[in-house]
Parts: sequence; structure tokens; C-alpha cells
Amino acid sequence: MSQATNLFVEQNKPRLLDELKTFLRIPSVSTLPEHVPDVQRAAQFVADSMKSAGLENIEIISTAKHPLVYADWLHAPGKPTVLCYGHYDVQPPDPLNEWISPPFEPEVRDGNLYARGSADDKGQMYMHIKAVEALLATTGTLPVNLKFLIEGEEEVGGESVAKFVAENPARLKADVALVSDTELFAEGLPTLCIGLRGLIYTEIEARGPSRDLHSGMYGGAAPNAVFGLVELLAKLKDANGRIQIPGMYDDVAPPTPAEKRSWEHLPFDEKEFLSHEVGASQLTGEPGYPVLERVWARPTLEVHGIAGGFTAAGAKTVIPARATAKVSMRMVPNQDPEKIIAAYKKFVAENTPAGIQTEVRVLSWGPAIMVNPDHPAIHVAAQSFRDILGKETVFIRSGGSIPIVGDFAKHLGIPTILMGFGLPDDGLHSPNEKYKVANYYAGIMTIAHFFEQYGQ
Amino acid sequence: MSQATNLFVEQNKPRLLDELKTFLRIPSVSTLPEHVPDVQRAAQFVADSMKSAGLENIEIISTAKHPLVYADWLHAPGKPTVLCYGHYDVQPPDPLNEWISPPFEPEVRDGNLYARGSADDKGQMYMHIKAVEALLATTGTLPVNLKFLIEGEEEVGGESVAKFVAENPARLKADVALVSDTELFAEGLPTLCIGLRGLIYTEIEARGPSRDLHSGMYGGAAPNAVFGLVELLAKLKDANGRIQIPGMYDDVAPPTPAEKRSWEHLPFDEKEFLSHEVGASQLTGEPGYPVLERVWARPTLEVHGIAGGFTAAGAKTVIPARATAKVSMRMVPNQDPEKIIAAYKKFVAENTPAGIQTEVRVLSWGPAIMVNPDHPAIHVAAQSFRDILGKETVFIRSGGSIPIVGDFAKHLGIPTILMGFGLPDDGLHSPNEKYKVANYYAGIMTIAHFFEQYGQ
Repeated sequence: MSQATNLFVEQNKPRLLDELKTFLRIPSVSTLPEHVPDVQRAAQFVADSMKSAGLENIEIISTAKHPLVYADWLHAPGKPTVLCYGHYDVQPPDPLNEWISPPFEPEVRDGNLYARGSADDKGQMYMHIKAVEALLATTGTLPVNLKFLIEGEEEVGGESVAKFVAENPARLKADVALVSDTELFAEGLPTLCIGLRGLIYTEIEARGPSRDLHSGMYGGAAPNAVFGLVELLAKLKDANGRIQIPGMYDDVAPPTPAEKRSWEHLPFDEKEFLSHEVGASQLTGEPGYPVLERVWARPTLEVHGIAGGFTAAGAKTVIPARATAKVSMRMVPNQDPEKIIAAYKKFVAENTPAGIQTEVRVLSWGPAIMVNPDHPAIHVAAQSFRDILGKETVFIRSGGSIPIVGDFAKHLGIPTILMGFGLPDDGLHSPNEKYKVANYYAGIMTIAHFFEQYGQ
Repeated sequence: MSQATNLFVEQNKPRLLDELKTFLRIPSVSTLPEHVPDVQRAAQFVADSMKSAGLENIEIISTAKHPLVYADWLHAPGKPTVLCYGHYDVQPPDPLNEWISPPFEPEVRDGNLYARGSADDKGQMYMHIKAVEALLATTGTLPVNLKFLIEGEEEVGGESVAKFVAENPARLKADVALVSDTELFAEGLPTLCIGLRGLIYTEIEARGPSRDLHSGMYGGAAPNAVFGLVELLAKLKDANGRIQIPGMYDDVAPPTPAEKRSWEHLPFDEKEFLSHEVGASQLTGEPGYPVLERVWARPTLEVHGIAGGFTAAGAKTVIPARATAKVSMRMVPNQDPEKIIAAYKKFVAENTPAGIQTEVRVLSWGPAIMVNPDHPAIHVAAQSFRDILGKETVFIRSGGSIPIVGDFAKHLGIPTILMGFGLPDDGLHSPNEKYKVANYYAGIMTIAHFFEQYGQ
């Protein structure tokens, strides 16, 4: 059957690309208030596309922020139900002057489609709709039941979709979720992501004197909020990046020997990773752990930003009264976020220097997620991927966090297939974001094929 | 004679205050490029005030940055010459939202004049001009020869005035310099400052990856510029505030036993200092040294500000590519700034974490200064102070740095009388900076009286 959908994609390439370009021309930047009408237009575009494809019960659902788009097709009794998730909102495009072609005027160069959202996630979520269109156009029916839930707040925290999932488990009941918002480990290599790190995101505020003081008159006797915060932060990790919070590593589940071995066979070049991606003088992190294990399966702590005192050009001799830092921890399987948060708060309280007061604010948290690679849907997904790309599917993890996967597990009790078609150099969140056109077509074929295989 | 100048001040109080308010309304913030025209207006205001007072040969001298204002009155042959120095530039007013009345709209509340620069140093330098006005208006002449050199870069390093002093020793030849940019040790207590700490002001820039990285994808393997800077800074001092740079304390000259004893008799209440001035939970610093010794006679290191990565509201999961900090060191007598700078740079280089590159920029530096309390001009100043305020003059030091005092010593071979009328809680460099109105009037009287006594 998939020969039919493959042929459909082959014969409709220009139109499929043009329609995606139309979608990408809508600057649905969810974080900027001036783009609210664009975000609404993008939601409407998604709904219209679903209708054209043949999905049913389409609804644009208002939320506290940006609308959700729901649709379904439920005429395959006895067959499994797949919940397709994606997001139609995008990151801001700045710095604008670094784009070769404008971010919302899609342009194909060297086989890549350049536009904000081309890979993250418009280009990828749109493949799901087009796979439905291909199946219905060529066979008149669908091999599985489908539910679609597409959000417009993924780049700004995704609160509305999380609330909707928690409140509507019956409506969203499914056997498995399908998300295309990840990447192939390397060009042409079928890749399923089966592990995500969790994330605890916090702010620490330090206060010293009641106001900024003159460092000449008080230096030597008054506490300095910036230095106090610096002293505290420095204690959180040792020189090897090992987190010093007691108990941090107690519950860490290491990857299995089989998983570690499989990672060793991935086409990963540490030198290229350093020079092409990181761009620093050397890599860092815990000794004794390979790079992929460090970024996929080890807890980390990062300071994302710090601010305090006088930071403009020139000189000002103040002892700052306040300073703040954004600090997050990535967690791995078996770590309990609430236990880690408690240990972190205790550590901060116990290591706050004399004369300084600190306050920890936890902005968000979610646990690590593992998908069982032996789950039938994952097996089918791996096989479908191999069938279309012609290579054995690899199972990897990601060091990032996709909170919706946790929500699906918690509220719907289902695993998520993370089947993405991006590439490591797509430049998500950066200027000149791109999506390889061939992967867009291959993605539609693979997803249609997966629906067929999973329905058998 | 001073009865005449005292009476003049008494009779002209409203006008003297109004004129100072006009001066304070000019936002002459020397560190901010957008205030260049205001800095120039402030220089012109100073020149105009000198003219009204009766000073001669007034000149606004262009420099590489902000103008100097020179004036003199040299019709007292056989009498000593006093070089009056002050600065018309001010610190930035931020954080603006903490001011009760706007920083450049002077307002008197409870006998205090609130405005940026009211005490530091517009309100104090202006007293010198008004003392001249009082003497010339009441006696038609001056008891000493006077030279005025007023700068507009004191808050940004004072490079231009330093260069001018070095290049014009003949033009500036005098017997003593007079600076009013310090404070009374306590309300109503005549105070001469005879020691100042030196200052080395630097910026450290840290670089890690070539761009901000996604902390999920790279956390655990990529260096973090903010954390690298934090690690480095934390190593500069131990938990007691003791600087860890090798050799930092080698050349420190301790105060004499007599000086230490005199400090013990000063009306200093550590609890009040903590609660009224510092406003923190406790004081900090090197154990075993009294507070006054810590702030006057011990080297210190402070981080004045730090910035890097994402610091807006909410969460963004970046590994920052860059971070910067403003770091200064205060030096005490006998320490060699160039030796300290070299040791500091070496320490930074040796303690920069793996994967991070650091650069140190020295923005300014000047050594500590001591004035001999047995100098005749200091004796006369102490006596004049006592005559007007009615109490015995105390000799103290300041933990701050007034680099011009070193330049006067080095290039003109003269001591400086540091005769200031501020108060410890004036909030220099802080929101709600104030100057006690009564001290403004008393300062004009005292300076006029000093000129008379010194001319006898």
C-alpha cells in the first residue's frame, strides 16, 4: 500500500512544498504580543489543512493564551489510535540581519527550505496532516484511528496544552502518541528518540546590603550580593562539572550496557562536534563518561544567566545590593524532581555566604522520560523508518526536555514515538533555520507507512 | 573677619541653595554617552559661577573626554596659594525606581537636599566657589592666592585631569590642595581625612562556546561562560574575604599603634553602622581586624557587577557564550599597583576554568595616599574646622580612592587637605543621595575661614 502513498508524494511534490511555504509565511511568533493575530491565522491554517486532508471534528480551542487545534478520524474500529502532536508557533527570528533570506519568506537553496519554523516545528507537524491526505486520497480510508492535538505555545512553555491534556484524558484516549519535533542522528539515518532528560528550572535571588553601597567606604565590611551569589553558585559544581548537591547521583539509572554499546556505534565525531557545533577551545564535563552519555544520560546543572550590580560601559564602584541567576538542572531516569528540588534548596540555604540572603524560585519542572524500545508501536515505527530510508533504525536519547511527553505518560498512560526528520545543523532557534526538502517528503512517506504498518 | 562671611552666608541662604539646585538639575553623568551635552552644560555652569564669584582667568579646557574648568585669583603676593579641586560629574542614578524624588529634581526633605551629586561632589565643590564669593563680597579681596581646577571625569577614572596635572605643574603651582569630597565622621564632628585607599578597576570577560547553545543538547559537554566566570571569581577570595592572589598582602603597611588607638576613640557604633548604613544581616570581612581598619587600611576586592546569558523574565535554556564582570581592588599604603595588577592578571590566567577564555581589561588604577597630619596647612585646616563647628577635629582615613590626591603629590609636590562636609549616610552612588543643607552652609563658612586663617 505504501507504494501508493509514496507515489502520491512523488507526484504532488511542488504542491506539498508550496503549501508548506504558505504556512511558513505566517509569522506565528508566540512570545511577541504583536504577533497574536498571526498566531491565530496559523491556527486557522492548521484547521483548514486538516479539513482539506479529510480529518473530522476539527475545533480551534481557545485557551488562556494561544489556541489549540483538535481533529480526529475514528472510523477504524478494532484498530489502534494514534495521537499526533505538534506545534504551529515559532521562536522570534532575531537577529534579523543574520538571515540570508528573510525568515518569513521561505526560500529553497541547495535542497534546503530556509524559514523560521521550517524544522521547528511547522515543517514537521505538517507532515502528519499530509500523510493523512496521502492515505485518504489514495485508499479512501485510514488504517488506524487518529487524533490530532496541535498547540501554539510550545516555544513559551506550553501551559495551555498541558492543562488541556490533564483535563481531557477521555477525549484524547489513544494507544500511542506521535511527535515529529526531533532529528535524525545523521543524514539518512533513521532515528527514534527513546529518552529525554527532565528539567528543573529555577531562579536564585541574592540580597546583601539594603542598597548599593560605595565600595570604598564599605568594602571590607559589607557583604556583596553579587560576590555572595558567585560564591554560592561556584559550590554547586566542582571543576569537572560534578554537581555537589548531596544525593544528586543517588538514584541515577545508568544506561544499560546494550544501550551504551549501541551509542558507541553511532556516527559521532567528537572533534567535529567540538569545532562545528560547540565552538569552544575544548569540551568539558564529568571525566570517564563519553560525550553522548554526558549529554543524554547524566544529570547536569547550568547557569543560564546572571545579572547584578553595575554592568554598563565604564566603571562604577558599588557593592551591589542584589543579584539573580537562572539555574537549571537536567535530570535522568529514576531521579525524582521533588527530591532533587528539596536537596537543591537545602544546599542553597546551607551554602549561602554570611551576610547574604537567598531565595530560590522554581519556575517549572518535569521528570526524565524513557520510552520502552520494546513497545509494539516503537517496533513498528522503527521498521517503517527503515523501510523508507533503507537503513537500520538507531535508538538514541536527547539531552533536552519535551514536557508534553511527560504529560501524555502521566495523564493518558501512553508512550510517545519521537520520530523526527530534522538534522543536527538545522539551526533551530537560530538565524537561517532550515529543513531539508527531501526529509519533508520522506517524512510524509514514513508517517503514512507507519500508520499502515501499525494498523495491520 | 569670618563673622562677615558667616553673616553673608546667613543672609543669602535661600539664594545659595537655589543656585546649588540649579547646578544639580544638570544630569552630568560622565559615564553615559547620551549625557555628553549635560556634562558640557555643567562645565559651563561652573565657569559662570566662578565668574559671578569674582574669580579670574576662567577657562573651559577641552580634553580627550570631558572638559576641565580652570580659574584663579592671584592678587595676594607673599601669601600662600591654595589649589581648589572638585568635580562636577556624577554617578548614574539607576536604579531609578528606588528614588523617592527624581535624582535630577533636587528636593529638600527634613533638612536634607536630595539629588544625585548633592554630596558627591557638586554640593561640596560648589562651597569653594561660594566661599570666594562670600569673601570678595564682604572684604573686596582674598586672603590667599587661589587656583581652581574642576573636572568632569572623576566618576569615570579622571584620566584627563591626571594628564593635565602631569603636563602643567607650573600653571598649577600651589602650596596645598583643598578637596571637599569626603565626609564628617559623625554629625557635627570636624574631620580631616589623611589617608585614602588606592583603586585598580578592571573588567573580566569570559568566553566559552562560539554562540549560545541549547542546554539540553550540549549540557554536560560544553563549557558555560557564565559558570566559568563564576568559578574564577569565587577563587579570588576566601569565605572571610581574604584575597587569594599570591603576594597581595606582602607590602601592606599597617596603621601605627597611635593611629589605631585614635580610631578606637571615634564615635563608631558597629551595630548602628550595620543597621543604618549597610542594612545587611551581618558585617563581613577579615577576622581579627576592627571594622574601621578593614574599610580604611586593608586591601579589598569587590565584584561591582556581573552580566551574561539570559536574564529577562521567565525561562530560556541556553549555555551562555559570554559573560563579563567588573572587578576592583582597593590598595593600602605601600602597595604597588603595577605589581598587584601583574599578580591579578596571572591569577586570572592560571585560574580560568577549562574550555573558557578570559580577558582582563584594566580601566584605571591609582595608589593609596597618606597626608602628613603635621603639615602646617593641615594644622590650620583643623583649627578652622574647630572654630566653626565648635569641636576638636579628628583625623581619619577613608576607604575610598581620590586619585587626584596622588597626582598632586607626585607632580606638584603638595599635600591635599581633605576637608569634606558629607555625612556617612549620604548615600553616595546610591538612590536618594542627599546632602545636609546645614552642612552646605557650614562648609562655605569653614572654607572662607580657612582661607582667612591660612593667609595670616
